[in-house]
Parts: sequence; C-alpha cells; structure tokens
Amino acid sequence: MQPLSGILTISCPDRKGIVASVTSFLAQHGANILEANQHSDLADKAFFMRVQFELDGMDLDRDTIGPAFAEVAGSFEMQWQLHFSDRPKRMAILVSRLDHCLYDLLLRQKAGELVAEIPLIISNHPDMEPVAHNFGIPYYHLPVGKTNRAEQEAKIAALVEEHQIDVIILARYMQVLTPFLVQKYPNRIINIHHSFLPAFVGGRPYHQAYERGVKMIGATSHYVTEELDQGPIIAQDVTQVSHRDSVEDLIRKGRDLERLVLARAVRAHLEDRVLTYGRRTIVLE
Amino acid sequence: MQPLSGILTISCPDRKGIVASVTSFLAQHGANILEANQHSDLADKAFFMRVQFELDGMDLDRDTIGPAFAEVAGSFEMQWQLHFSDRPKRMAILVSRLDHCLYDLLLRQKAGELVAEIPLIISNHPDMEPVAHNFGIPYYHLPVGKTNRAEQEAKIAALVEEHQIDVIILARYMQVLTPFLVQKYPNRIINIHHSFLPAFVGGRPYHQAYERGVKMIGATSHYVTEELDQGPIIAQDVTQVSHRDSVEDLIRKGRDLERLVLARAVRAHLEDRVLTYGRRTIVLE
Amino acid sequence: MQPLSGILTISCPDRKGIVASVTSFLAQHGANILEANQHSDLADKAFFMRVQFELDGMDLDRDTIGPAFAEVAGSFEMQWQLHFSDRPKRMAILVSRLDHCLYDLLLRQKAGELVAEIPLIISNHPDMEPVAHNFGIPYYHLPVGKTNRAEQEAKIAALVEEHQIDVIILARYMQVLTPFLVQKYPNRIINIHHSFLPAFVGGRPYHQAYERGVKMIGATSHYVTEELDQGPIIAQDVTQVSHRDSVEDLIRKGRDLERLVLARAVRAHLEDRVLTYGRRTIVLE
Amino acid sequence: MQPLSGILTISCPDRKGIVASVTSFLAQHGANILEANQHSDLADKAFFMRVQFELDGMDLDRDTIGPAFAEVAGSFEMQWQLHFSDRPKRMAILVSRLDHCLYDLLLRQKAGELVAEIPLIISNHPDMEPVAHNFGIPYYHLPVGKTNRAEQEAKIAALVEEHQIDVIILARYMQVLTPFLVQKYPNRIINIHHSFLPAFVGGRPYHQAYERGVKMIGATSHYVTEELDQGPIIAQDVTQVSHRDSVEDLIRKGRDLERLVLARAVRAHLEDRVLTYGRRTIVLE
Repeated sequence: MQPLSGILTISCPDRKGIVASVTSFLAQHGANILEANQHSDLADKAFFMRVQFELDGMDLDRDTIGPAFAEVAGSFEMQWQLHFSDRPKRMAILVSRLDHCLYDLLLRQKAGELVAEIPLIISNHPDMEPVAHNFGIPYYHLPVGKTNRAEQEAKIAALVEEHQIDVIILARYMQVLTPFLVQKYPNRIINIHHSFLPAFVGGRPYHQAYERGVKMIGATSHYVTEELDQGPIIAQDVTQVSHRDSVEDLIRKGRDLERLVLARAVRAHLEDRVLTYGRRTIVLE
Repeated sequence: MQPLSGILTISCPDRKGIVASVTSFLAQHGANILEANQHSDLADKAFFMRVQFELDGMDLDRDTIGPAFAEVAGSFEMQWQLHFSDRPKRMAILVSRLDHCLYDLLLRQKAGELVAEIPLIISNHPDMEPVAHNFGIPYYHLPVGKTNRAEQEAKIAALVEEHQIDVIILARYMQVLTPFLVQKYPNRIINIHHSFLPAFVGGRPYHQAYERGVKMIGATSHYVTEELDQGPIIAQDVTQVSHRDSVEDLIRKGRDLERLVLARAVRAHLEDRVLTYGRRTIVLE
Repeated sequence: MQPLSGILTISCPDRKGIVASVTSFLAQHGANILEANQHSDLADKAFFMRVQFELDGMDLDRDTIGPAFAEVAGSFEMQWQLHFSDRPKRMAILVSRLDHCLYDLLLRQKAGELVAEIPLIISNHPDMEPVAHNFGIPYYHLPVGKTNRAEQEAKIAALVEEHQIDVIILARYMQVLTPFLVQKYPNRIINIHHSFLPAFVGGRPYHQAYERGVKMIGATSHYVTEELDQGPIIAQDVTQVSHRDSVEDLIRKGRDLERLVLARAVRAHLEDRVLTYGRRTIVLE
Repeated sequence: MQPLSGILTISCPDRKGIVASVTSFLAQHGANILEANQHSDLADKAFFMRVQFELDGMDLDRDTIGPAFAEVAGSFEMQWQLHFSDRPKRMAILVSRLDHCLYDLLLRQKAGELVAEIPLIISNHPDMEPVAHNFGIPYYHLPVGKTNRAEQEAKIAALVEEHQIDVIILARYMQVLTPFLVQKYPNRIINIHHSFLPAFVGGRPYHQAYERGVKMIGATSHYVTEELDQGPIIAQDVTQVSHRDSVEDLIRKGRDLERLVLARAVRAHLEDRVLTYGRRTIVLE
C-alpha cells in the first residue's frame, strides 16, 4: 500500500530561488519528498517542476496545503496544480472498431499499471460492447453520421460531465473531433496516431509509409488540438520494417507500437508528469 | 582471405521458375553458392534476387559467366548485373565542413568494414584537407558560389569520370546537386539526411525537430534524385530525445545516428545488396 | 483469403546444387514460390532452407508432394518437413498466475496474428479460468505439489496426446518441467524467460538484475531442453532501465518485453521459420 | 561560451529537508540553478543529488563556496564534491591494438562532446602511436610481459600522478589491472566490456555469444573493481544479431556498440553525473 501523497506541478518564468522556495515550503510543513523533478528551459527562461511528497507527518492537511502554497506560488507567478494519490483520475475511453488499444488500456488498468477509474467507454460502433461487458464497464454506442456529429459530440460532452471525467483517451477512435469538444478539454484529450509524426499526417499512415518505402514505422501519442495531428507530443516510438513487409505487416507491427506508446503517454498523464509548453511537452520522469 | 566470388543481382517480373533457372545455371557450371536472397513483391508481381557464388570450381571464368547467363536472363526479361569480389567499388566522398561522417567512412574503410577504394575527396571548403592528408587521399577543393555552381559540378563530373568512380557519397555535403549531376549517376549518389524522412524535409531539420517537440530524432540515408530528400531510402534509424535536449543536444546526438545510418547504407550498396524499385529499395541482407 | 500453400523446411550438409534441386523440383511440378529463404553456415558446412509455394497449378497434390520430394531429399541427406497452410498448428498454453502473456497470445490469435488452434489451457492454479472462459477455451487445473509432479505431468502429456497438440507454450508457467515431458517434445516446448539469457539464469531474474545494477533488462524465448534456461534461443529483446526503477518497475517494464518476445517466437514457430542446430536456432524470416 | 558554473554532487542518508537546505543555501548566496537532479532510493533510504549553478551573481567565489557549504553538508552527513566547469577533467587513455574506441574518444573530445584534457595515451603495444601523433598527444609504450606487470603498472601510476590525471579510460586495453592500480583509483577507472554484462564475463565474449546463439549482442561500460567485470555499470546497450552473423560479424557490429557505450559513460563521468552506490550507479541526467 502506497502512502498517501500529494503531487504538485508547477510552470512559471525561471528565476533564482524557485526550487528553494518550493522545497522549503514543504520542509517547513514537515513533508517528506518522495520524488522531485524540475526543468529549466534556458532558451525561453521557463521553469517546470513536479514534486511528490508524503502527507503523513505534515502539519497541513489536504485542504490547507493548497491555500498555504498559494502564497509561494503568487510570488513566482506560478501556474500550478495539486493532486492527491488517493484520488485517481477518471478516464473515458473512446474507441471505434479496433480492439488492441482498448484491451491494452483495460488490462493495464486491471494490473495496476494505470492508476485510474474507467467509468465508461464510448464508441461510434457497437463492436466493442462485449469487451466492455467483460470488464464490467458501461458502454455507450453513439454512431456518427454525416448529419449528427454535433449532436453526438454534445452527448459525449454530457457523459463526460456527468461522470466527472478528467481525461479522454482516443484509443483508435476514427473520428476527427470538432473544435467544440477539443476546446472544452485542452490537454485533456490524448490521441494515438499511427505514424511517427510529423511524418504521415492524416489518414492511412501505414499506406503512406509503404508507398514512401520507409525503413521504420512509428506511433505518436499527443494531446488533441484543433489542428489535426499537430498537438503537443507526449510519447513516440518506432520499429524496423523492410521491403518484405506488406501494408498488412505494417499494420500488424504497428499495433504493438500503438499500444505501447499510448500506454506510456496515458501513464505519464495519469501520474501528472506531463506539462505542456506551447507545442511541446515536458515529461518529468 | 575470402575466395574470389561473383555477385549477381537481378530484377524482373515475377513468374514461376526463376530461382530454379538461376540456381540451376550456377549448379550446372559447378558454382558453390555462398549466399542467396530473393524477394517476390506479391502485390506488384516483381522479383528481386542477389546471389553470391564462388568462382573456384566453375567451368566458366569471369569473362564467360556473363555471356552464358545472358540466355537465362533473356528468357525472364531480367535486368541484371554481375560483380566480382576482387574488384571493390571506387567511392568518391563529398563533404563540406563537418568531419564526423567523413572520419567514420575513412576509419571503416581502413578497418575493412567498407570494402572500397577511395581515390578522392571533394569539398566546397578547405577545412577537411588535413583529414584527407592523414589518410593519404587526394583532396579537391571546389568552392561553390552563386555563379559557379554549373562549372564546379562539371569539374566534379570530370573527376568522377577520370577516377572511374562507381559511387558518390555525400557525407554531409551541404550543397544541393543540380539535375546535371543527379541524372548522370542514378542510384549511384548516396546522401545522409539528418532527419527521419519524410519528416523535416529540407534545411535545419534538428531545429525543425526541436520546434515540433518530437521525442525521437532520426537520420535517413537515400539515393539522390531530382526531388530534394525524396529519393529511395536505404537505411534509417532514430534515437530518443526529451525536453531536456536543446538544439545543440539534438545535433550532438544526431551525429552518431548520421554516422551509423550512412555507414550501413554505404556498406549495403558496396556489397550490391540494394536494388531500387520505384521510390523504394529492396535491401537483400 | 490466402491461397493454399505448402511449406517445406530442410536441414542438410551444405554442398553444391541444393537450392537448384529443390527449386527445380518445385518448378517442374508447376509450383509458384511465394517465399524462399536459405542459409549456409560456412563454418560448419550446414544448409538450411524454408520455401513456401502455392499448390494451385501444381501437378501434384498434398498427398503426393512428399513422396515425390523424398527422392530429392534422399540424395542430399536432408532432414525435412512439409506443412500446409490450411492445417494450422495446435497449441497448448501452460500458465500459472500471471495473465499478461496468456492474454497476449489469446488476443493475437483472435486478431489473426498467430495462426493456430488453441484447444486447451493448462494451469497449476485456478486463477486464469475466467480468462479461458471468456475466450471459450477449455481450462485444466492441474495443481503441482511436492509429491504429485510426475502424476500431473503424465496428465499433461495425456491431454497433449488427446488433443493432438503440436506445440506447448509456457506462458509464464512457473514450474520446471521434468525430463519426462521435455524429452517427449523436443523443439516443441517454447518458454519465455524474464531475462536476457544467459544473464540471470534461474529464479527471480528481475531481482538479480536490480541487485547487479544493469541499465537494461531483457526477455528471452527459447525451446525447453533438459538443462534449465539453456535451450536454443528463438527471440530476445531488451529495454532501458535506470537507477529510478525499483524491482517493481522492472517487473512492470518486463511484462511488455515478455509479451512481445514470446509472441515473436511463437509466431516464427507457427510459421515453420525456426530450425534448430545444436544450441542455436536459424530463424528464416 | 558557457558561463562559469559549479557542480555539486551529494550522497547521504535520505531524510526530510535535504533539497530545501541545498537549494536554499544556493539561493541565499545568489546562485542561479542551471540544472538539478536528485534521487531518493526509497528501499535503502539513500539520497543522491547533482546541482549545477552559475557562479556569476553569487556572493561567494570558488574558494569560499566549499567551506560555506560544509556546514550544510555536515548536518546531513553528506559525502560531497564540488567541481567547476572551467576545470575540465584530465583523462588518460589506455589502449592495446584496436583503434576504434581510441579514435572515437579523440574525435569526440576534439568536437567538444567530451570536455576533457587528454595529456597522454598509454599502450602495451606500439601500434597506436601514429594515431596519438596525429592528435598531438604524447604516447607511452609500456609493453606488459609475464614478469614486468608490477613494474609497468608502477610506471602507469607514476604517469598518472605526474600528469594529475582524474580519470583513466580503458579503451579496449587488453590487460587485467592488478589490485595495486584498481585500489588506487576507485571509481576513477572506466572500462568497456564487449558483452551485455553479466552475460559473457571474461575473455572472448563475442565467441561466447556466438556459441550460445544469442539474438542480441551488447556492450557494457563500468568502473573497474578488483573483481573482473563486476564493477558498477555506468552504461549498456545492445544490437540485434541473427544466425547470419559469424563471429567476425559480431565483432564488427560490436565495435559500434563499444564506441557508443564507452563514450556515453565517459561523458556522464566527465560531467559529474555518476554517483556509485554499492555495486550500482546513479546516473543523474
């Protein structure tokens, strides 16, 4: 059993004394630091930090840490968030007809690798309903056609609100979201794209890769922004291919990449390790 | 000491009996096959083969193998080439001001990893002259300005002819070749591009990679065609990067990639393992 | 729908004319070769080949190919096998309490990545029964204690015979098999060991890796022989770790390796791509 | 031009307030932190830190920082070291007859990738003298026979003292050092072993790897201790091999691994990123 811990994530302009102020605040209140990571972007004079600390032994409780920290935060113009380890994030999975990423997330969550609650699975197809059923998770079938996209996205948004969802995972959800949903959840929608972005943006990336004759294929997990496949990248990986691989082989090999890369990105997000900065991410691990 | 061997490379439409015909031809003439690789592109009904065989024990010699094989070749509409292991390819290296790929090629050739003769090094800058001198290789300084490009490329072509060059390596040669040179040596000019193509085509790919916030950088070695960075890819590789890496770090990490990927491509070419097919390569290893 | 094909695997002493004889035999009988791979071990003068060919168009059928080929085989002292693509191998999975390799094999089989029938799952624990149930596969619970090992292995052997099993997969089956079973199925039992063999033979390899302070962990899939963890290696892979990784982190990261490496080995075996040669394997892909 | 910076490395028992104390000390004296990394080993309650800070703007100079910090250090029982960026480490390279690691280190130093002075190269063979000469580095030929080992190691030690060497690199130096030298320079002698340790300890690891039929080969860089190939590992990497690779191929492929892994370890050491902890290293990057 992990002890109850707090996780503080911070972004601010870089200047002297930030680490000292944050860690002194924690030390003064009796906190034991479990893990601390920080990054200074020397080019842009920006500072990023994630610090995880035990609550046991502190003279503050979960309701008073934030207000007490606000004073430190204010003096450094920090954007900050405070999370607690006993409040796992609530994750909605959106999927179409391919089951490999869905299974992968569900099995990793079951194994404790992904610490999250999964209150619902949403799909534009009925195919994955039996999988959801096996894992005891409610399944919402919201088919998307030419005329009902806005309507169905409104339903998705309503479900997300109702279930107090923290993060939406597009686990090979083959619909482009409209700005309505994307703007509603900045840095809270994670997609897996089946290419090494920025190569092969858009549709059918394995076919594009085959045509171009590349010797490696990749997968990219990123936050969704309004511009297709242009959001901040959280994780990427590649694998070797050769002239012997048909498009079907690329698709097969790519499935393993997609699963691993998406899982890595989701895990980092769930652990509050991902800070975004313009088009880039800082992954503090 | 390796025994004298012949290397036959073949491209033709796929149909029944090709492997049998080629290997029976060799068997009938007493050849011992050292290595044979073939590939059938089932989608396009195309066939590719590389077979390496000992000459010792054959009832044909190096001058009569080709004519004898022509009959087999004709019946299958083969494009084919015959090389001999005691005639290493002659390689010209073009370089600008960065020494890492140049040193790498020279050291690998010296170590016997790259079996080739290097009769000359050509550069648009004087900087690498001492390196060439250390390795005892003539160095031609052909500076390229706004007005003399055609003239200098004509000199390059003259040197290539004079020295009976088989393959030209652009080892970080920072000039775009004109169609004149490119058309003259199809599939005989190998470039190293410092990105995972087709991502980050063109100039300053490490800067582009930094701006996009990718989590891996790559290098690509390809034959040069008239369309910039679009030629058939021979080899690619990538390495992990993170938010901690500045552009300078990407450049440093990329140097190792560039060396390894270029060396892999050059080695495959020198061993007659690379067949091109439209925009793609078949690398028979 | 793949066309019906035959797969011929061959091992024999290396000499002139083998490839010609095999491919001429196929050509004479009208076979179209889909894929052919061969390897000559020059040091040991040994020859290995795998050739896959379409039956459609041949003047032999599946019952007469073997007898007809026997003559070619005899003249080269070949050990050979002939398989047909419409007779997938029958695979028994043995598992203990960890579900990740089991799920992985079942999902890949369901997705068509592993072409095999799975008539039964055997375990020394009851835990995986619901998984087997979800996939509609009979589950045999054969607990192993200090006194009943021989008896339970006899039951396993009986089930293997009864269900005409071709290959046994130890998907994190945490029992050392006795020579009785191992000798019965040479090169037909595949294990996944959670280290980069030959490092960390035996129990608790992740703990051993942690203690030694290695910077990468690995997984190895191999055929089971009488000597523990010493059988011919089919596939291996590694992943990076660091001082930040606890033993639990190594176990978590290792799960992905185990799944990928086991799946790769099983796939190669199911496609008749693995030939063994002393302690080594030839994987013809 | 990098600004002058100090690098403080710290090991101590883990307890509350360490990071706060260290960073507050720096903040109070006006230091700007460029990079800070720390690690808490939760199992062993041990703490490790590396912090790099600019001297410009501090109210202490290079002579007074250490004494001022001693007070902080004392209260936490720290083992600590303070280095300055304008005092690059002095590195001796020991080499036998293989040139690839030697060239690699020299070229990286020349390119600024390895910030170090190289006052001398020592070898038990004369072969590398021309390389040393090309790079303008004094070369000491100290041949080692059956009877003069102690004598030659005494000469090595004398040279190391005379040239105020900080770190000794065994760049494929094919002599086992005696305890005399090893004990003299704990955590200051770096070796490259051409296997993925702990696999294939001792001599001829590529031959061992070939015999065992592994599917990947590796290289390991470690500090030298009295027990052969058992010192704390700094860096490791691997590459794929197959049945097609002869021992000579493994040796060739291994050369690239050896160079990359040794360079990574040396760079980490030169930047004071490696702390040792029993048999393990903490590499703070």
